[in-house]
Amino acid sequence: MTSPYHQTYAERALNHENPAAKLLLETMERKKSNLAVSVDVTRSEDFLAIVDAAGPYVCLVKTHVDVLEDFDYSLVERLQELSKRHDFVIFEDRKFADIGNTVALQYSSGVYKIANWSHITNAHPVPGSSIVKGLSSVGLPLGRGLLLLAEMSTKGSLATGSYTEEAVRMARAHRDFVIGFIAQRRMDGIGAAPDEAPEDEDFLILTPGVGLESKGDGMGQQYRTPREVVLDSGCDVIIVGRGIYGSEFQPDTIAARAERYMAEGWAAYVERTSST
Amino acid sequence: MTSPYHQTYAERALNHENPAAKLLLETMERKKSNLAVSVDVTRSEDFLAIVDAAGPYVCLVKTHVDVLEDFDYSLVERLQELSKRHDFVIFEDRKFADIGNTVALQYSSGVYKIANWSHITNAHPVPGSSIVKGLSSVGLPLGRGLLLLAEMSTKGSLATGSYTEEAVRMARAHRDFVIGFIAQRRMDGIGAAPDEAPEDEDFLILTPGVGLESKGDGMGQQYRTPREVVLDSGCDVIIVGRGIYGSEFQPDTIAARAERYMAEGWAAYVERTSST
Repeated sequence: MTSPYHQTYAERALNHENPAAKLLLETMERKKSNLAVSVDVTRSEDFLAIVDAAGPYVCLVKTHVDVLEDFDYSLVERLQELSKRHDFVIFEDRKFADIGNTVALQYSSGVYKIANWSHITNAHPVPGSSIVKGLSSVGLPLGRGLLLLAEMSTKGSLATGSYTEEAVRMARAHRDFVIGFIAQRRMDGIGAAPDEAPEDEDFLILTPGVGLESKGDGMGQQYRTPREVVLDSGCDVIIVGRGIYGSEFQPDTIAARAERYMAEGWAAYVERTSST
Repeated sequence: MTSPYHQTYAERALNHENPAAKLLLETMERKKSNLAVSVDVTRSEDFLAIVDAAGPYVCLVKTHVDVLEDFDYSLVERLQELSKRHDFVIFEDRKFADIGNTVALQYSSGVYKIANWSHITNAHPVPGSSIVKGLSSVGLPLGRGLLLLAEMSTKGSLATGSYTEEAVRMARAHRDFVIGFIAQRRMDGIGAAPDEAPEDEDFLILTPGVGLESKGDGMGQQYRTPREVVLDSGCDVIIVGRGIYGSEFQPDTIAARAERYMAEGWAAYVERTSST
């Protein structure tokens, strides 16, 4: 099989059984966008304005609903309307990191009921595979997908080496629900035993820490360009936050910046799939 | 200096500068309890009933406020009243696990405003030290304390070996705010360089996965007894959940079970501090 690095998103959509993975790849192909916007603001009004302005240019909106001061569940309904209108996938970046029984409750219940509305969520592999089982017991029947944090973009991250290998093994053992990784490069074949056939696997790689210039934020975040991420490292979705919505949340500026990131990300993808 | 293993909680309270660490150790000594109850229920009414019934026997109440279906902020006020009436410390087991900028928002803002009311919270060290800096920027001015997850009690946990060592180094570099660990044993001196003086350090060890019988829950959680945890492994606080409140949430039964765990945990501590 051709490596996922060289396949189109449309080709890869056919190889995925998980509905959330399929939806994301089809959306990317349809919109010609591998851009995700990460919306980390504390007021619902700003949140919705940013999503509405960036929505036409992104395949996915990444949320942290737990930073919203004035959250109530009607926000979720508004987000779902925008998701339909602008055709994007929703990814609550919850970074679950507890034992199986607890994450199952955190995912299904509470104020946020994340499993009800977020097509994709993510988890740290650190508790061991019970975290995947706990989340899967809630998410799989709903057609949801999970990303594991195999690497982080922060300075001094401990998600390296054997930790990353274990994350990939955990994903490989739960391919019905784990659709890919938060990582800085492709994970195909990492940590595989000689008798496994990692050439058949296709994990989606979603990559934070993307900026038009490489630099940092003073809080340990490090940035790479869309071209470095998609072409050099073979990642699939570039995740951009403040680089799109800045600090003033102006719709025209947001749209213009999102369009620019979308174009850069897509150009890198076209170059990648044209290469052999 | 005598090892923290052999010191009384009262002696150790004098060695801590952090207000949350001091409060916890003083509370343990005053109540003669090293028992924490972990309350993972989805209804506020049950939550408050359990806290009220177990409150007299515990030094600390561990919460997961994000699993409560009917959370509103008045619950926090009720919890704070119970904390004063029954004299216990509050620990929101949030397991922060994101980059510095995001965890600072998650800790201070949103619906839960954890930093406003939780004396202690915890974080995974996996993102690198930016997570401690982000949380510290919010919690230190409020006199809060942080525990790092150096180990987990689940099967297949990746928090082992060099990961655990890095967690301890990260704590050692931020001793004003990091007061100890979620772990299964003492961490004193782990990962220390030869020229460091780890004998001066005193990290609190809070230990989940405690039951009166050693066994598991079918979701990857593994249990050890209070004696194994406090005497054999030198941990400071035993964390018990369902073992105290069961599935029927009967106040008399909860009180009786909490009292039994408290007695077992304290006996192990007395035996430990009497040994040389």
